[in-house]
Amino acid sequence: MPLARIDLIEGKSAEYRRTIADVVYDKMIECLGVPEDRFQTITEHKAENFLFDADYLSLYRSENCIFIQLIFLDVASPEQKVAFYKAVVDSLHEKLQVRPEDVFFNLMTVDPPDFSMGKGVGTYVNGVPTDRLDPDSV
Amino acid sequence: MPLARIDLIEGKSAEYRRTIADVVYDKMIECLGVPEDRFQTITEHKAENFLFDADYLSLYRSENCIFIQLIFLDVASPEQKVAFYKAVVDSLHEKLQVRPEDVFFNLMTVDPPDFSMGKGVGTYVNGVPTDRLDPDSV
Amino acid sequence: MPLARIDLIEGKSAEYRRTIADVVYDKMIECLGVPEDRFQTITEHKAENFLFDADYLSLYRSENCIFIQLIFLDVASPEQKVAFYKAVVDSLHEKLQVRPEDVFFNLMTVDPPDFSMGKGVGTYVNGVPTDRLDPDSV
Repeated sequence: MPLARIDLIEGKSAEYRRTIADVVYDKMIECLGVPEDRFQTITEHKAENFLFDADYLSLYRSENCIFIQLIFLDVASPEQKVAFYKAVVDSLHEKLQVRPEDVFFNLMTVDPPDFSMGKGVGTYVNGVPTDRLDPDSV
Repeated sequence: MPLARIDLIEGKSAEYRRTIADVVYDKMIECLGVPEDRFQTITEHKAENFLFDADYLSLYRSENCIFIQLIFLDVASPEQKVAFYKAVVDSLHEKLQVRPEDVFFNLMTVDPPDFSMGKGVGTYVNGVPTDRLDPDSV
Repeated sequence: MPLARIDLIEGKSAEYRRTIADVVYDKMIECLGVPEDRFQTITEHKAENFLFDADYLSLYRSENCIFIQLIFLDVASPEQKVAFYKAVVDSLHEKLQVRPEDVFFNLMTVDPPDFSMGKGVGTYVNGVPTDRLDPDSV
């Protein structure tokens, strides 16, 4: 159910961008206990429109920096959120050689009535399908 | 007062996009009991940067899929939110032949001090104009 | 730590856009008591994709309208938020001759576990560095 917004500097291949999106999706399901279903936007920015501190508290960031924002139901514990950050960063490093310092995350949570997955209904207004939630996934 | 972000795949006419925005605005006023005033962004994505499950739990989505995100004050009941989803979907189907399955919504609510409509003031910091709110609109 | 999203109509110079981003960053640090560190996206829209009421309750807006969205930890009082609005608007007026009516703000707050500044860790999961917070800054 989550909505993911992925921002990065333009110049990467479609395959590279798709891999980021796939990793965010897979690890979200694996770590956060959210129902499946994919809604993701990727925005490619000119460097001048994508701003970050290249050196902050000795944490050096490169032009490969990625911002990942995820909006979902409040179903994950702090430990699950941290597990998600680590799982995404490890996978992006393994698959795309993204430096761990180059991945910024912002999570935002909303209430069950705040999503409609289609057909104009309040998909979770009568409850979230707990059989697809796995609190032990972390 | 709400901020709406509308995302879709590139290739639709300016009139088609404007109709989506107008429907979101009109139904928001009609269903959610929010003060008027329009702030909307429309982002047209390459198909490779706009990702959704084309077939999820037998809910088939087409390349005409639209993501609608709305950020507003916490003034609407769950019933009002569901009425908003249905009203937008029905209107988009009627005006643009958008399939009901192709409309995804995410609502987010914030506190009154979290908006400034202009002039550098906290527009609602001393309260929301209840005379323009209509809790009976649904 | 905040994530800022700045939206405006295309046609402004890179220097103009950078000045907006710098003002948002500087005033955020000055007024909101947030930890430093910059994460900002600027999105330039075609006029037809950036919609606002040009005349609402006698508040006239021009094509230089700017939407500023800021997502940060819940560390600021309503007074600090209003001080931020005013400081940004005053500075944009001074530096870029932006009309005060032309700046729209939306703030959103999240919990400490909802940010990762890099390395795949939950940067604030064990607390926010209060030594860099200054509640007396307003």
